[in-house]
Amino acid sequence: MLQLQSDTSLAWVGTVEAGIDEVLIDHAHCEKKAAGTAMNLIFSYVESVDFVQPLCEIVTEELEHFSLVLDLIKSRGITFRKQQPSSYGRRLSELVRKEEPEKILDRCLIAALIEARSCERFGVLRDHLRDPELAQFYGSLYDSEMRHYGIYLRFAQGFAAQADRKEEVAPRLRTLARKEAEIIALGDPFPRIHS
Amino acid sequence: MLQLQSDTSLAWVGTVEAGIDEVLIDHAHCEKKAAGTAMNLIFSYVESVDFVQPLCEIVTEELEHFSLVLDLIKSRGITFRKQQPSSYGRRLSELVRKEEPEKILDRCLIAALIEARSCERFGVLRDHLRDPELAQFYGSLYDSEMRHYGIYLRFAQGFAAQADRKEEVAPRLRTLARKEAEIIALGDPFPRIHS
Repeated sequence: MLQLQSDTSLAWVGTVEAGIDEVLIDHAHCEKKAAGTAMNLIFSYVESVDFVQPLCEIVTEELEHFSLVLDLIKSRGITFRKQQPSSYGRRLSELVRKEEPEKILDRCLIAALIEARSCERFGVLRDHLRDPELAQFYGSLYDSEMRHYGIYLRFAQGFAAQADRKEEVAPRLRTLARKEAEIIALGDPFPRIHS
Repeated sequence: MLQLQSDTSLAWVGTVEAGIDEVLIDHAHCEKKAAGTAMNLIFSYVESVDFVQPLCEIVTEELEHFSLVLDLIKSRGITFRKQQPSSYGRRLSELVRKEEPEKILDRCLIAALIEARSCERFGVLRDHLRDPELAQFYGSLYDSEMRHYGIYLRFAQGFAAQADRKEEVAPRLRTLARKEAEIIALGDPFPRIHS
């Protein structure tokens, strides 16, 4: 349903549990970045009003999650700080083509895939983390990641339809999903949401 | 109470009424920029958690206003588009000093002054616009601009206190408010919220 081309292994849950403080800090930064991505899209495509208003809601929800993760971090006595991100987001953004309408199509599809992967991983954390507070927390975020995935996918379809290139969406999504699976498989030397 | 060093003349209301479509478009962009300013502060000072969480609320409120103005624009059959902004924001941002903690102090105080000026002008529009829908609309935004002004002022005081330079806030605010009054007096060749 999420169109991802790989499943997260349970070994990753072990990495998360061993480095939970770092993962929570990374998660907060991921929510902040997701809000920033939606905000950048608002600035870049502001004349597309039907696109911009749902993006405002995405920014708001991502910042709500950011704030919730910050609360969790504070409640556990962890010091929130800047931290080296995983290479996942940077590698995916390198796949965005430079010319329109390919550019906006790719930005939306990659945003959709990041939401899909976050959704999939939050589901894994909900089902397998031994810390009940965290398992419950990740379960509570699952639905909105799923919804954002659907919104970004519809944006891609809408922009493609405007350019009379609707048939390009499905094959491009498959290509990007294959690359996303390759990128997430590379892992990272430190525990992260997308390591 | 808002510490502004000048009052908006009623002549400006005439300019607004004569160019209301352009002003509404400008207003939407101003709300978007206000959200962007708060988001940029989140990214720049993310480790200051007590600062970041109220900023998330400011982003959310500015985007709500942005969306409300877009609805108003649509309901009036106006085509929303990119448009040359007034020089007000750019001129004010040139006053930000380059080194910390002066930089964050100035960013907060200038954000406070922009909120204050918007608040003052929305009050003028509420009291003097002949279009009752618009007068009511501007009245409805007045309180949150006032609140944002207070939040940014408290941020400035907080950052100054951290750097043990609390006594610098009041004189710097007076200096910047004097410059703000000079900048807004320059006007613009086209009707804008800050022309």
